[in-house]
Amino acid sequence: MIADKIRSVLIIGMGLIGSSIARVISEKKLAKNIFAVDPKQEVISKCIELNLVKEIKKNLDEYNQQFDLIFICTPLSKYNDIFFNLNKYVNQNTLLTDVGSTKISVIADFKANVKNDLIKFLPCHPIAGLEKSGPEYGFSTLFENRYCVATPFNKDDDFVKVICKFWEEIGMKIEIMDADYHDRILAMTSHIPQLIAYSVVGTVSELDDQVKDEIIKYSAAGFRDFTRLAGSDPIMWRDVYARNKDSVLEMLGRFGEDLSLLQKAIRNNDKDFLEKKFSNAKKIRKSIEDIGQAGSFDPREKK
Amino acid sequence: MIADKIRSVLIIGMGLIGSSIARVISEKKLAKNIFAVDPKQEVISKCIELNLVKEIKKNLDEYNQQFDLIFICTPLSKYNDIFFNLNKYVNQNTLLTDVGSTKISVIADFKANVKNDLIKFLPCHPIAGLEKSGPEYGFSTLFENRYCVATPFNKDDDFVKVICKFWEEIGMKIEIMDADYHDRILAMTSHIPQLIAYSVVGTVSELDDQVKDEIIKYSAAGFRDFTRLAGSDPIMWRDVYARNKDSVLEMLGRFGEDLSLLQKAIRNNDKDFLEKKFSNAKKIRKSIEDIGQAGSFDPREKK
Repeated sequence: MIADKIRSVLIIGMGLIGSSIARVISEKKLAKNIFAVDPKQEVISKCIELNLVKEIKKNLDEYNQQFDLIFICTPLSKYNDIFFNLNKYVNQNTLLTDVGSTKISVIADFKANVKNDLIKFLPCHPIAGLEKSGPEYGFSTLFENRYCVATPFNKDDDFVKVICKFWEEIGMKIEIMDADYHDRILAMTSHIPQLIAYSVVGTVSELDDQVKDEIIKYSAAGFRDFTRLAGSDPIMWRDVYARNKDSVLEMLGRFGEDLSLLQKAIRNNDKDFLEKKFSNAKKIRKSIEDIGQAGSFDPREKK
Repeated sequence: MIADKIRSVLIIGMGLIGSSIARVISEKKLAKNIFAVDPKQEVISKCIELNLVKEIKKNLDEYNQQFDLIFICTPLSKYNDIFFNLNKYVNQNTLLTDVGSTKISVIADFKANVKNDLIKFLPCHPIAGLEKSGPEYGFSTLFENRYCVATPFNKDDDFVKVICKFWEEIGMKIEIMDADYHDRILAMTSHIPQLIAYSVVGTVSELDDQVKDEIIKYSAAGFRDFTRLAGSDPIMWRDVYARNKDSVLEMLGRFGEDLSLLQKAIRNNDKDFLEKKFSNAKKIRKSIEDIGQAGSFDPREKK
């Protein structure tokens, strides 16, 4: 049992993801004690109110102890400082992992800051989330049956197995991948859809007020799916585009070409082309449902 | 009670929408008998198996009776023939409404085919749906608390009130609007998001097989929201773009400009611009949740 080895866990950043990790670790008793760091007073208060962790502090330096396993669950722009601080702080063997949506930049930040051999880092990306932010929205089954991509420096390192095992106990399926392959795949599955959703919703936010009100009113027609993504944390996403610029710009180029073809087909009344393209897209949806990664949508409001 | 006046209802097209209308009319006893027409044998068999209507036939001509209220629930490309046939068939006062996603084209088709004064037509668009097609996916609460846009020729006609009342008993909130205003609003809330979803998913369907498999696997990262829309009926959507070409192309132009600005901001590392745009988009999401039109999404699979 891994909990025998992992007595204390530290979670840096107690938003949706960090707080969900805290919940599942508690529920499944994967560690003896969970500690946390978050710079925001309202997050600290909420974590105390919900009794999510044993202790939570504003800064790492306020602690007087070492940890067996540390999770970084903050926006990517915080990583530089976090690595810098951990490099000074850690004085015993410590496992370190993260949840960042880009991996090349995370590895670069780590290498630039950490010279401390006691820190055993496995860059990870658990592919799970929701458009809500904040510890009050987390829940313990968020990771259940979802994929966690790990991009190890050296996949034969012993500690890699230990951290992967911990993610598995949290509920995830591990996939090992190169960081740059991860960043390219995620550009397409995540960063581009997110940017396009922001863009469509942004177009609406700049229309005049009456039209905007109507669009909000009739959003159930499809637009609301875009707004769900666009409800996500702006800081987190701002950082993603700064950190996966090349892949995002490349995929955006491809998307632009394909959209132009559809636009031209509409202009030219080429119904066969449209039908063929739409049918191909429908097949992709089917594949996602078949492998159980579709989630479930109910058009009615939650009571 | 409207059911006293509406004894027999005919539903032309028993897909998701038509079958949901049949279900709610039965459940709430809004009419004495429900009849249906659908050209597809598998749809007919499914409707009989599920006992959705009193009778269902392949063609209108197979019936030997008149109806009090008729719903057209087919793709837009069928409307011309349907209006042509109704024009010949109807020989008593008959209320007629439809569920088509465009309204200018529906009105043009009606005017081109119907010279029969006994037909009292109210063009409507119930803003409700799901990515599934076929009678097996319909359900009686699909319309509950959603908007139905009506675009009457003359809003003072007495029959307009009767048909609106029927939609309200189905569960909908009626909004009266000009057909061309409807088509412009819906271009933005529905036709553009749908086209972009098809386009993003289409870009993936043309990548090589290994990459495509990975993208399907990691779709929970955002891409799956697009695939949900792209799971919709290709024929229905092909017809929408043919019938609302001008508004779609205009809105697509605006979207393209906004996306270019985001693309440029990424290229230039303009993080402030991105954060501002993303924050504005998040506000729109909030408005949709506030008015109870967001639906609910659960990242876990349906059991």
